[in-house]
Amino acid sequence: MTDTFNRSGASPPEPKTGAKIVEPTYEGDFVLDGPLRLECGRSLDCPTLHYAVYGRLNAARDNAVLVCHALSGSALVGSWWPEVFAPGAVLSLKHDFVICINMLGSCYGSTGPGSVNPETGQLYGPDFPLVGVRDNVRAQARLLDSLGIRKLRLTLGGSIGGMQALDWTILHPDRVERALIVGVTPLSAMGLALNHLQRQAIQHDPEWDGGRYLPQRPPRRGLALARQIAMISYKSAPLFDERFGRHPNRSGEDPWAADGAHGGLTGGRFDIAGYLDYQGQRFIERFDANAYLAILRAMDTWDPLRGYESPQQAFGRIKAALSFIGISSDWLFPADEVRRFAESVRAAGAQADYREMKSEHGHDAFLAEQAELVRLLQ
Amino acid sequence: MTDTFNRSGASPPEPKTGAKIVEPTYEGDFVLDGPLRLECGRSLDCPTLHYAVYGRLNAARDNAVLVCHALSGSALVGSWWPEVFAPGAVLSLKHDFVICINMLGSCYGSTGPGSVNPETGQLYGPDFPLVGVRDNVRAQARLLDSLGIRKLRLTLGGSIGGMQALDWTILHPDRVERALIVGVTPLSAMGLALNHLQRQAIQHDPEWDGGRYLPQRPPRRGLALARQIAMISYKSAPLFDERFGRHPNRSGEDPWAADGAHGGLTGGRFDIAGYLDYQGQRFIERFDANAYLAILRAMDTWDPLRGYESPQQAFGRIKAALSFIGISSDWLFPADEVRRFAESVRAAGAQADYREMKSEHGHDAFLAEQAELVRLLQ
Repeated sequence: MTDTFNRSGASPPEPKTGAKIVEPTYEGDFVLDGPLRLECGRSLDCPTLHYAVYGRLNAARDNAVLVCHALSGSALVGSWWPEVFAPGAVLSLKHDFVICINMLGSCYGSTGPGSVNPETGQLYGPDFPLVGVRDNVRAQARLLDSLGIRKLRLTLGGSIGGMQALDWTILHPDRVERALIVGVTPLSAMGLALNHLQRQAIQHDPEWDGGRYLPQRPPRRGLALARQIAMISYKSAPLFDERFGRHPNRSGEDPWAADGAHGGLTGGRFDIAGYLDYQGQRFIERFDANAYLAILRAMDTWDPLRGYESPQQAFGRIKAALSFIGISSDWLFPADEVRRFAESVRAAGAQADYREMKSEHGHDAFLAEQAELVRLLQ
Repeated sequence: MTDTFNRSGASPPEPKTGAKIVEPTYEGDFVLDGPLRLECGRSLDCPTLHYAVYGRLNAARDNAVLVCHALSGSALVGSWWPEVFAPGAVLSLKHDFVICINMLGSCYGSTGPGSVNPETGQLYGPDFPLVGVRDNVRAQARLLDSLGIRKLRLTLGGSIGGMQALDWTILHPDRVERALIVGVTPLSAMGLALNHLQRQAIQHDPEWDGGRYLPQRPPRRGLALARQIAMISYKSAPLFDERFGRHPNRSGEDPWAADGAHGGLTGGRFDIAGYLDYQGQRFIERFDANAYLAILRAMDTWDPLRGYESPQQAFGRIKAALSFIGISSDWLFPADEVRRFAESVRAAGAQADYREMKSEHGHDAFLAEQAELVRLLQ
């Protein structure tokens, strides 16, 4: 199988803190031996899951931990969440066998829109089907089966990673002892709105070409704008004020200048605009636009109650002990909504507590302030 | 002077409530007799101000009220703010002479990027200069001079209209008795970020063509996306949840469908997405993309302290009695920031109070819940 977007020189996300990257014990591919039937009615033929492991599986095979990554994350959890591995933190390289699996639809090694569709010999592109969070969890379970891992000591993740962590406890109640679900609820209308804006930013780029763009000519401007829209939802207004205020861009531009790059209609940038532009540019070097669309869809459509008759029927299946973590300044998944979500899960019969992380970093805090998260979880 | 975008069949904004439109006594143009020197260093040669008046100027000429409109508003305040004219409300058709002037840069009759530059005989397009809020206020003062209006009983406005109302009291302290400033502070970093996103949405549209597009071929998709980005900042997350929740689009679409308009990468829309698309489509029928960019810049660059050595030097000039109104659910101009802004103006020596409008409508409440605003102001 040839992946043209996947692994095409794209570098995985880097740690947002200064912490040293933790190297995996092993990184590789698992190819499902047959079709993965999807909830949307379609299927993926023998999809690949790219994964990384850290530490060693013990003889009893009861020390496995599954980390689920967020939208633009990768299997290399030691790269983007290194402080969670610090001595005495959440995960132990000595005692745990940590596994992290790249989501289907992504561009970091698992089958996604940039992979070749074995049925056609062409890139999937826009023909890549809706692969929901549950579909991912079912595929992940088959990878764990192949490793002989029957039960997870812990599953955890933030954002869409938290969606996966919770779905694990519902779909495979006998296989999870504990779950940490950070900064997530089913997307609110505002969250759906933000994703709708991002989707359009990509689709309006003429280079997107209905999703059939060539790897060497991706919709860069559209993806960069999508990332910028996402960034305002990942951070908080107070953090922006503190960091950028109304200062002109630090590279030296004058927002009050008579003329900017496009005459008088645009002036020099403010610092926040320079920051957003930089974030957009960095992102297009490492992520694929169709993969972004695929994962937005997985996020949009996630509803743990879908197909169940009641919250009791869905959440009542859970045997794991759950902890929900809200982030005080998160406006994409507001802390109050995470708390209410945790309460609704508990009211439906599951064991669930709620903790709140105090941070000005907004939704991004679980990546940007890992030490704070670790303290809360200890 | 031929305006090609201005008045080219574009309809002005309609009332957001069910109230009946109030018709103006007169609607017309005022052409400045000479250049308008701008703070950016450039000037506009004999610009036109399109304006509307309601009621009659009394013999003493002391019953004038100036209403300043928001980003996409027009001089027809009776069309977009009719409830403010209701019997016993804020304005009286019997006692007041209400004047509202289309902002320079806009597309509702005043000189803007869609007007012909008398120096070149061509449309201004991207050569339209930065016309700031203060520049508008100075131009408006010349129109009032021509009408023999020395003093305003009241000036008022929401959003960028509030910026103008406050600048009136600083730049012309002897000409304003009272000002109502609704839902506004200098833009925060988050506000600047939102404008930066909107600007890019327009500029990324290939039809924008560096701002030199023809009237018959405007950057529709870009402007529609800009409007959608704005809409999420004008409304509140609770309102979106209440109105749209996670429901599929009411026209009948399935977000969980295997395929949407562009294969599996996009599905049926959620209701909030249908709403945003509709708002974007409505907007491109009535507004011009370059005018939008011009007014975003006026909003971005507004800083009432710019050029003054201290808040005392700026706000200490004010002789009018000011009322600042925050909107409880506004996240573009949060109520707490409006309150703090009012306090800083008062601390600098002006007479200023603060009132808060309780509404779920977000920033848009001053247009969407006019009756509430009127109650607060009575």
